[in-house]
Formats: sequence, C-alpha cells, structure tokens
Amino acid sequence: MGNINDAGSIGIVKTKYFKFAEPPQELILSSGEKLGPIIVPYETYGELNKEKSNTILIFHALTGDAHAAGYNNPEEKKPGWWDLMIGPGKSFDTDKYFVICSNVIGGCKGSTGPSSVDARTGKPYGLTFPVITIKDMIVLQKKLLDHLGIETLFCVAGGSMGGMQALQWLVSYPDMSKGAMLIATSPTHTAQAIAFNSVWRYSIIQDPNWNNGNYYDTEKPDKGLSIARMIGHITYLSEESMHEKFGRKIISGKSAQSGIADFTKEFEVESYLQYQGESFIKRFDANSYLYITKAIDDFNITDGFENLADALKDIKAKCFVISFTSDWLYPQEQSIKIVKVLKINGIETTYTNFDSSYGHDSFLIDDVRLKNLFSGFLKSIKEQTL
Amino acid sequence: MGNINDAGSIGIVKTKYFKFAEPPQELILSSGEKLGPIIVPYETYGELNKEKSNTILIFHALTGDAHAAGYNNPEEKKPGWWDLMIGPGKSFDTDKYFVICSNVIGGCKGSTGPSSVDARTGKPYGLTFPVITIKDMIVLQKKLLDHLGIETLFCVAGGSMGGMQALQWLVSYPDMSKGAMLIATSPTHTAQAIAFNSVWRYSIIQDPNWNNGNYYDTEKPDKGLSIARMIGHITYLSEESMHEKFGRKIISGKSAQSGIADFTKEFEVESYLQYQGESFIKRFDANSYLYITKAIDDFNITDGFENLADALKDIKAKCFVISFTSDWLYPQEQSIKIVKVLKINGIETTYTNFDSSYGHDSFLIDDVRLKNLFSGFLKSIKEQTL
Repeated sequence: MGNINDAGSIGIVKTKYFKFAEPPQELILSSGEKLGPIIVPYETYGELNKEKSNTILIFHALTGDAHAAGYNNPEEKKPGWWDLMIGPGKSFDTDKYFVICSNVIGGCKGSTGPSSVDARTGKPYGLTFPVITIKDMIVLQKKLLDHLGIETLFCVAGGSMGGMQALQWLVSYPDMSKGAMLIATSPTHTAQAIAFNSVWRYSIIQDPNWNNGNYYDTEKPDKGLSIARMIGHITYLSEESMHEKFGRKIISGKSAQSGIADFTKEFEVESYLQYQGESFIKRFDANSYLYITKAIDDFNITDGFENLADALKDIKAKCFVISFTSDWLYPQEQSIKIVKVLKINGIETTYTNFDSSYGHDSFLIDDVRLKNLFSGFLKSIKEQTL
Repeated sequence: MGNINDAGSIGIVKTKYFKFAEPPQELILSSGEKLGPIIVPYETYGELNKEKSNTILIFHALTGDAHAAGYNNPEEKKPGWWDLMIGPGKSFDTDKYFVICSNVIGGCKGSTGPSSVDARTGKPYGLTFPVITIKDMIVLQKKLLDHLGIETLFCVAGGSMGGMQALQWLVSYPDMSKGAMLIATSPTHTAQAIAFNSVWRYSIIQDPNWNNGNYYDTEKPDKGLSIARMIGHITYLSEESMHEKFGRKIISGKSAQSGIADFTKEFEVESYLQYQGESFIKRFDANSYLYITKAIDDFNITDGFENLADALKDIKAKCFVISFTSDWLYPQEQSIKIVKVLKINGIETTYTNFDSSYGHDSFLIDDVRLKNLFSGFLKSIKEQTL
C-alpha cells in the first residue's frame, strides 16, 4: 500500500480544477449536444521541464478519478489509485516526468456529470445530462493541456477504459505523443462485455429508487448499484485469483448444510462481494455509472474509418500494448488485434501478454516485473526522443 | 427444434407423479430436517425390458424439469428440454432404452419445493422449506426407482447440475449403474461460480417484493429474478457464440451516439438478455432459484471423504466425462480432475473436451457429433454388459 512518508511517495498533492466552456461558449459533444460550463479536476506530479517535453498523461478506468498518486491530506488512508506506479523513482518517475491525471466527463469525483448542478435549472442534470463518449473524454483532456500550455506529450498511458482513451488520443492527435501504453484494453467492446455492462445498468434502472435518474434529493438506488458493482467485480478478477483468495472457505461459525437457509452469507467470497458492493455505493454515483459504462460500450475506434488499420494509420507514437493472461473480460485477442494493425502500419510496437493471475485488474497489482516493464518502455522512448 | 410428427419424436407423453414420505413417515434430509409428503413428477420414454436392465436415468440442470422429451399435449410449442437426444433412433434410443427423468426437490415444476403448500399450515413453505442438497435430489430419484421396481441402471446421465447428480449417484450407489455420462460438470463449485450464483441470489433477496420469501399472495420479485437470470444467461454462453450471434449489432432504428441516453436498449444483445429475463420469470419461482443454486454451491463430492480419490473409489460404472472447449463456467479443468481420479482408481473412463463454441450450454445444442458421441458411448456399455 505504501505510506505518505515513503521515499517513493509523492506526498501531499492538491486536486486542481480547470473550468471552461462557459456559456455561450459551450462545448459541442460528439452527440452534437452542447454542454457548459465544464469542470475538469486534475492532479499533477513532478515538474514540467523547460522544454515542456516530459509530460505523461494518465487516463483512469471506469471508477477511477484524478487522484492517481500521493495523498490529498495527511489523514487519507489510501494513496491515489496508481500510487504504485507514480512517484519519485517509480515507473512513472516524478523526478523525471511531469505526470497529469484528470477525471473524465460524466464522472462524480468533481468533474461535470449527471450529479452536477445544471446552471440553467439550479438542479442536478440527472438524465438531462447528454450522452458522452470516450472521444469527449479526451477532448476535455486536450483542453486541459491547452490550458496548461503543453503541446507535446512524452507518453500517454491507461488501463481498461483508460487504455481506450489512450488509443483514442493516438487516433485524434496522432502527432502529439512520443509514446503510448495501452493496457488491458480493446479497440471496442465484445458482445459479452456489452452484455455484462448492460446488466449492470439494468440492475440500476430497475431499482425503484433510481426514479428515472432523479434521486439526488431522495433515497439513492443503492441496491441496484451494489448489485452492478458485485457483478463487475467478478469480471475484474480471475477464477484463479478468486480460488487462491477464497476457494470454498466458509464464513466462520457458519455450516454449509444446516437446516436453515442462508442464501448469501455462507461462503467468504459472498461477504467479500457484498462488502465491495456496499463500499462502492458510498463513493460512486449510479447515473455516472450508467453514462460511463455506456460510453465504454459505444466506443469503437474504427467509427468513421474504413477499418482498424485505417483508424490507426497516422499514429506516430511508439506503442506498448499489454494484456494479462488471466484477463477474461478484455482477453489478449483484443490486444493482439491492435498490435497486428500497428505493426502492419509500420508503427514501432512492443507487445506483452503479461503472466498474471489477477485478471483484468492486474495493472493495479503490486508486481515488480510490471513496474520494470513500464520503466523499461519509458526508457526506450527516452533514448529515442528526449 | 423438431416436430411432434417427426419419426424421431416420442410424441405425446404424460407427466406422472410419485408421492411418498407421508407423515409421520417423513423423509430425513441431509440437513437432518424432515420433509413430507414429497411429490416427484417424472416422465418415462420407451419400455422397460423383461430383464429390467435397460433403464437410463436422466438428471436435469438448474432450471430444467421432468419433461425431457416429447410433447405433453399437441399444442405445446417446444418439446422437452433434451428432445434432441431422447426418442426413437436418437442417442438415448427409446426403441432400446427405458429413459426416466424426474424433477428435483426444491423445484417449481410439480416437485415439492418452497412454493408448495405446507400441509401443516395450509400455506406455501417459502423460507420454512428446509435446505436441500444434491444428495437429497438423488435420494428422491432412488425412491422413485424403488417405487418402479428398478434395481439396476444401464446408465445415468446429466449436464451441469445434472452432472453433479450423476456423480453423486455414482458415489451413493456405486454398484447400481453400468454406465455414467458426466457432462459439463464439476466435483464442486469454484469460488467464481459461487460468486455468480451468490449475486443472482443477492439480486432476488434485494428485490423488495421478495419479502423474505413470502410473495405467493403478492407481487413477485420479478425484477430481482430477471436480473439473476440475465447474468446467469451470460455465464451459460461463450464470448465466441455471443460475438457470432450479436457482435455489436444495434437494434434497428437506434443510433449508438444520439444525444438522448438509452442505457439498456441499444445493442441487440441487450434486448436479447432482457427477453431471457422476462420469459424466465413466467416459468420459474424465485425461491426455488435460491434453494437450488444454493444446493449447487454447497455440493462437494468429497464431503465425508478424505479426498476426491477416496470419494470415487467404489464406482463400478464405465464413465464418460465430457467438457466443452468454450465452457468458462465449468471449465475443462473441473472435468479433468474427475477423469484423473477415475483413472487412478482403475475405473474405465473416456474423456472428451468437445470442441464447441456454445459455452456451458453446449450439451443442449443440436450437434450431430455430440449425438454420435453419446450413442457411441452407450453402445460401448451395451457391448460389455447388456
């Protein structure tokens, strides 16, 4: 987990807020709808060098946020979500790089989303919030970089939905970044992945408390959201890691075949999942979950292009594609599709199917081999370009 | 699908009912609880031969029933759930074999379960119904065979939970059957499989209409049950078959990125899953789903034994173990565990990891290779023993 006093910790960081698209200069989204004003929370770690050439842009996954490393206050129990990777001497070495992470549009961690107050009505947007896309997410991040005066990136990096953003970045701004790390991601969701996301959403909208998205003054759709998260959590792990962690362990004091029915609290894995669901409802907004999972399902990097090769043809970045052997939600075939096309297009590309038992979430696990792979790739860009 | 007039159709069949354990002679269940009276619906296909040596006992899966083949009436649209396999000239050839299938205890298709009326109170059991196990299921089937005067089986066969019953049958009555087909099954549920089943149950009990199992006179927990089924359905298919069937097809008239949010009805796979959920609630009882999935999770063939080898040591049947390449819910490793131990114990065993893209449900798919495998195995028992 690390500690605020560790040599590798970035220490205390402050989330900053960038506000733009003030009416009447609203942003036009991919859907054609207008939105404004828009607030983008972001954090930065390390220093921008004089040449403004050392920026690494990090994209977070579905339920992540701008707080990727360090501590927002000394009392915070856990550091940012990728603190394992970001800090002095770490893979994203803040002694060398200027690292930026911002919260996506549609979110609920300070960015403008369905739970934000619509200035025109004085009430939360709810379902009047427009549909958002992965492309909209990176447009915001580009606006943020413009605001910070950064024209060149050393690298973009993200896992899962973060990897989709990194891939979209390469397609939308093919000349801007020298490197890219596409981790546990996919050029588009498979039918199975859509199916899971759709049942999560169905579970939320079937909760009577969801009330067509109007629950900000009433009871929240906590039951629906917790069920959604429980299913999601299973898909982020692997059969192997669940077996190692829980196997068929019974909650102490319980018996497998007593005469009284106990349908959800006999095995340890059951109480673990319920705990995951119950903690999640405290930190995430159900409508944000709907909008962001929908953006993921709608993402297809080939939209507007002939095919994948056409979509990826202009990329200049050196690419590192990483899948995980036990990731069954975004299986290696999805990464291989990207790698094949990058190579066909003559784009310098390294691919690793990383041996890990932790499933889709492997990129969030403390593994020295993975840290070294990340450092090594960044070094290989540096040697070429910095 | 077949037709009632097909040469291979068994035609019209009538479900019969066997009633036993009339108080005070109640049945003592695995949990130690008593239950009675118990009704076991069953169907038979073909004729019992003079030697009473040609019986095949079929075990159904989670949501199956006694109606395995033919038509209960001329208006029935679909034949029994394994009609593809059971009938004149089919794999379970009713010109040769006497095939029996009965509905499991705890079910809602005529067998005694939580929706049955408790004679003592005049009201449905609900959660006063005792915990049931896979072992209890086969005890009922044994009582049925005793009632029918059948002392020897030619073969036992079942897929998924049906395979668990077949395996339990071999352990409980090791001398009784000459052959056994253990299909897409497991000696015990993995942590991941428990996790899925548990979320299904959680989804039901979180539905306000569930009302602690007392909903037989009120609104049913349809929302919870349909969500449970939708998740379940994903686990029964494979990524590959979902991709082939749906890919990223959009429901006609819909657009992927319009400005208005539509969270659950854009992709065809979404409406398909919702249809599955909505049809299921018409034919299945939520409490039965709780009890039977719990019996599956609690099943561990090694319970009461030193280990798997010890549990399977007395089996006399020739065994055929079949897994499916695309079944990720009961992956081939689970079948291989059984096969290894059977072979170590010197039990004649054939194993096939059948190449199919249809996931866990592959044993219900019309595939001539599978039909031939089944016939071939039955022939191999015949040559030895009949």
